[in-house]
Formats: sequence, C-alpha cells, structure tokens
Amino acid sequence: MYYIGIDVGGTNLKAGLVDESYALVAAKSRPLAFESQEAMGETLVRMAMELAEEENIPREQIASIGMGFPGPVDDRRGVVVKTTNIPLREMPVADMVHRRWDVPVHLGNDADCAAWGEYRCFAPEAESLILVTLGTGVGTGVILDGKLRTGINSCAAEGGHMVIAQGGRPCPCGRQGCWEQYASATALIRDTREAMERDPGSALWKAAGSLEAVDGRTAFTALHMGDSTAKAVVDSYIRYLAAGIVNFINIFQPEVVCIGGGVSKAADEDLLLPLQRLVRELSFDTEELKPHTRLVKARLGNDAGIIGAALLGAPMAR
Amino acid sequence: MYYIGIDVGGTNLKAGLVDESYALVAAKSRPLAFESQEAMGETLVRMAMELAEEENIPREQIASIGMGFPGPVDDRRGVVVKTTNIPLREMPVADMVHRRWDVPVHLGNDADCAAWGEYRCFAPEAESLILVTLGTGVGTGVILDGKLRTGINSCAAEGGHMVIAQGGRPCPCGRQGCWEQYASATALIRDTREAMERDPGSALWKAAGSLEAVDGRTAFTALHMGDSTAKAVVDSYIRYLAAGIVNFINIFQPEVVCIGGGVSKAADEDLLLPLQRLVRELSFDTEELKPHTRLVKARLGNDAGIIGAALLGAPMAR
Repeated sequence: MYYIGIDVGGTNLKAGLVDESYALVAAKSRPLAFESQEAMGETLVRMAMELAEEENIPREQIASIGMGFPGPVDDRRGVVVKTTNIPLREMPVADMVHRRWDVPVHLGNDADCAAWGEYRCFAPEAESLILVTLGTGVGTGVILDGKLRTGINSCAAEGGHMVIAQGGRPCPCGRQGCWEQYASATALIRDTREAMERDPGSALWKAAGSLEAVDGRTAFTALHMGDSTAKAVVDSYIRYLAAGIVNFINIFQPEVVCIGGGVSKAADEDLLLPLQRLVRELSFDTEELKPHTRLVKARLGNDAGIIGAALLGAPMAR
Repeated sequence: MYYIGIDVGGTNLKAGLVDESYALVAAKSRPLAFESQEAMGETLVRMAMELAEEENIPREQIASIGMGFPGPVDDRRGVVVKTTNIPLREMPVADMVHRRWDVPVHLGNDADCAAWGEYRCFAPEAESLILVTLGTGVGTGVILDGKLRTGINSCAAEGGHMVIAQGGRPCPCGRQGCWEQYASATALIRDTREAMERDPGSALWKAAGSLEAVDGRTAFTALHMGDSTAKAVVDSYIRYLAAGIVNFINIFQPEVVCIGGGVSKAADEDLLLPLQRLVRELSFDTEELKPHTRLVKARLGNDAGIIGAALLGAPMAR
C-alpha cells in the first residue's frame, strides 16, 4: 500500500507518494493559485489522483490521503477550521475529496504533520518528541506517548507564541515577546540587518553583499570570517533559541527535541553544539536524573510535512 | 477500601485517609524533624499505621499508600531521587515501607499529586487539566488524556521554571526570568514591599502594618481601600500570571487550567475575573475555535496534595 501526503503552504502545494517503509517515492509541486475553496478542493483531489496515475499506482493501492494546513483543523469532521495566509474558513475538505474519490482522508496542522513525520522516523527509538521548526515563524509539534498532542481544539503546540520576553517585540498574535520574534529565521535576518546598520565595518556586509541579500546563513558565514559582530548576533540568537527549548524541556522532559527548518542547516559547530551545551546547562533536570532529553537535528528536512501528512493514515509499524 | 496519602513538605508531614468517594475522612500532621533517611522512612510508615489504627480501619482495608515529595521520584523503582529542602537522595521508600507493611506504595512529585487530586475531582468533566499552584514557588502539574505527564525522568511540568522574561530576575534554578520569580506568592510579597518602599503614603502600609507583616493578601486589601499603588502591584502581578498561563494554553490547549495555592484565595473580582479576561484576550486560539480552555479556581485547597497522593493508587471510577 501507499499513502499520499499533501503539504498546503501559503505559496505552494506539495504532494508526495509514500510507501510502507515511509520513503517518499514520488513528489510533485505547484504554485497555489487561490480562487475559491471549491476550486482549491478540486485542485487537491486532482493532484492526488495525478500522482497515483503518473506512478501507475492503482487507486485501491492508496490507503489514505493526508493533508497538512497552515492553521487549525478538525480531523474528526474532516474540516479545515481556518488558515493564515490562505482565506480558508470551515472548508469541508474530506467531503470535497469524497465526491470524487472514496478514500480515507486525514487532516493535520502543518507543524504537527512535520513533527509526526520526524517522530515516525525516530520510532521506536522514542515515544516522545518535540519538533521545533525555525523558518518564517517558529513552528512546534508535540508527540507524547506516541500521540500527536493537538489539544481540545487542534490549536495546541503553538510554541512559537510562548512569551519568553514579557513586554518585548510585538507579535501579530497580539502578545509581546513571543519566542518566534527572536528564534525564527525572520528574526535572525532582522537581527543580522540591524547589526550591519550599527557596524558598517562588519564582515556581515561582505558575507551578504547588501542589506536586501541577507538571509539566515549570513551571520554564520561572517562568523567563519572571524567577525565579532557576527559572533554577537549568533550568540544572542542561540541564547533565545535555547530559552524556548529549555522551557519545553522543563515542561515536558521529552526523549527527543529536534530542530528543523532553514536555520537548522548551519554547521553543527556553529549552532547545534553550542545550543546543546547551553540547553544542558540551563535545563531543570539534574545530573542525578537520567535520562536527559536528546537535542538533535531533524532528519527529514523539507519533506517532513509531506511525509508526516501521508503517515497520518499509516498504522504504526510496531 | 481506603487510600492513605502522605504529603511530605519541607516543614511538615501531612497524612490523610481517603475513601472511595475521594473524601478525606481523617488527617494528621507532624513537624518534619529530619535525622536520617532511615528514620524518615520509619516515621512515614508509622504515620500511615497510626492513621489506620486511630480510625479503626483494619490494614487489609487499606488499598495503597501514596506519597508526594518535593522533588523527582522514580515510581517504578519506588525511590525518591532527590528533594529540595530535605536532604533525600535515592531513598528507597517503597522498600522501607515493605519491611513493615506489605501494601502497594505509589510515589509522586508534590505538585503532580496536587494536580492529580484536582483532576480526579474534575473527572469525568475533563480529560486534560493543568494545575498552577501559587505558593512559595509556582508549582505546575499536567494531566493529558487522563494521565499525569511526568516526562522521561519524572521531572517534567516544572512550569515555574519556564522563562517568561529573558534576562530578568535571577532564579535559584540557574536561569533568569523564570515565571515563579513573578507569579509566586513570594514574588507578590516582594513586589508589595518594593511598592511600599517607593510610596510611603500608600494604603499598603495601613493594610500590612509593617514591611515584615506583608503577605500575599496585603495588595488585595489595599486595593479595596482604593489605593492606586496597590492597584499597580495587582495589575502587574496579574499580567505576569497571565503570561505563563497563556503560554501553557498555547502549548497544550487543555480543557481546564486551575489556579490554587494561597494567592488564589483572593476575591474573584480582584484576581480570577480580570485574569480570565486577560487570558482570553491573549490566548492564541480564536473565536472560531471551540471549545476554549476553562480557567477556574482549584477545588481541593490545601488538601489537594494529600488527596492526590492517596489517589495515585485508586483506580479511575469510570
């Protein structure tokens, strides 16, 4: 059997075919051109059908279709409650698919899908895992006892909107000092630009070329040129990133915390290793207490969302 | 059948006898006089025996003994790993009891026991509940899907050590800006004293009598005298309390958050109602999403720890 996963992003729709060993055997992508919920439902089911046809997989070999959306979903009703960036409201996705194809449909939040994908790849090594995705925002997904924890309204695990700096940077969610205002790629880019404006002699200028060209790698590139301003940007970024991760550890004491997303691709000696040291030092657990949470890089990269969505409908191998 | 619960505090040992309707039918307390782990184990088992004898309950009518300790425990091994305030390390409590009495022994962290007690009183109304106890520190306990969540090392749910103000007030745990430095009774007392020192004309002086006599009620008493300095203290306290509660809601979206501990006894219009408004306003969930987390006062008061410890060994009624 195969599983189809679709990752619905604000700019692209990505669909993939996953086999029973959790491998992504085929994928396709298209830009999102939103016209109406009706048309979008049609597009989603057509993408899934085309993927199966192009790979010559008969429909009865597709066990389920899973979809991840950038917002809360109600999987029991098969409804997308609301999305940010795309104007979906109470969209009855499962019904829309079932008009064309009688296949089980599973819905998830995109960050939850990514966490579920990572978790399925780690299992049976771990029963509890938290994925922290460092991208435009900070996405988090929580698996405890082998179950995605989405709360009473499928809106849980919004760890990016955990205040770590009361009264700090304003966040569109309405609070001030949310973690994602300090630990997202967006925040790192902003911090890098501000450092460049303060220090016209910094190697950050050489690393980026211009303010406009700054990305999540700029500070790490300049760090390797021995630039002290870049070092200060990276050190501060790691401190804020550690603050939220330690909060999660003090609250959950999970077996694994994974970091994913663009920023996580920095070299281990620049990000993961100093982060591990700081997290170990600040976590509430003590040397007497074993085991400690393992802090690692995510394994699936950009495909986590598709694979996790597909595996929403796959039975656990054990 | 009956259940015995013992709440091991830094200054007192409190034991109680709980019946099958979860009612506390008898209780006794004695000051903690720590000599050795061996002597302490002896005291605990003797308290339990005396409680049963004084109530004329034959030993075979005691289904289990549960104990809550101020630190992490390893219930599977029957060992207290470590406690703060009392110098316990790797104390084999279950074995110590079993030398004298062959009865099932269950161990828990004290904040977890209190949360478990509250949860058992709420069930079957709720499957997920977080208890926030506002006392010397801020204790938290998390129940999801009807299970206490203690993490891989029974050290989870240390929500008091969630940083909400990066770089803020130093905490003995080694971090800066932990929630309990702002939301505990200790923090409220400190804030009240500092406000009095800044404002010698404040009604806080009348409410307290002296700096030394300030307690967690002082600010609320002066608030009712129409004092603006007291209002500023209470408003700030509620903002910090809300910050951590909203973090918990954004992470868990539980059915119920309970606040307990001394400060929670303030009149509803002074604490619970403004807190509910602020939490609703700042939570990540939206009006479209139902249901919302209910924020309520804890029901069991000071007995939550004893009752919860006793009920560690009681099967769920449903």
